[in-house]
Amino acid sequence: MVHVPELDESERDQLLADHPEWSLARDGKAIERTFQFGNFSEAWGFMSRVALNAERLDHHPEWFNVYAKVEITLTTHDAGAHGGLSQRDIKMVRAIDSLV
Amino acid sequence: MVHVPELDESERDQLLADHPEWSLARDGKAIERTFQFGNFSEAWGFMSRVALNAERLDHHPEWFNVYAKVEITLTTHDAGAHGGLSQRDIKMVRAIDSLV
Repeated sequence: MVHVPELDESERDQLLADHPEWSLARDGKAIERTFQFGNFSEAWGFMSRVALNAERLDHHPEWFNVYAKVEITLTTHDAGAHGGLSQRDIKMVRAIDSLV
Repeated sequence: MVHVPELDESERDQLLADHPEWSLARDGKAIERTFQFGNFSEAWGFMSRVALNAERLDHHPEWFNVYAKVEITLTTHDAGAHGGLSQRDIKMVRAIDSLV
């Protein structure tokens, strides 16, 4: 398992400042955002584009969908001692936010 | 809102007998199954096929994915007084199980 450096506090604060629609979850070890679309087709189109980015970046979301709603949680399982936020999550947040 | 008849007890039992990998959830008002694939690409391919069926049947799952795991919950919001299982869920279970 490759160890991935966890974001330090200032990097984490910068991430939240740059992406105010996201909020910390799991005691700061993850970040999450909820997206609301007009219908399932729109939600699925968005998810398909996120899926391609996930494969490209080799970093996959934990996500939930019901009809037009998509909840995405990002965390890096290999970061820190018990998982946490890393540069991988920053890249994925940027990729996701560029889609909406 | 169109009212949809809720499955009666014998129909529900038959559904579970025909699809033993599924189990009841939410006090019998929903049914769920967890699928494990080899990687995200396989999981996503499966989800894409479920998504097409969901649009075709106009009945959409509540589902969660992380990497190779997909958890699907089916319920009919318009069934019974507060949601429940209906023929729509039976059709969707059949469509999903035919994919794996």
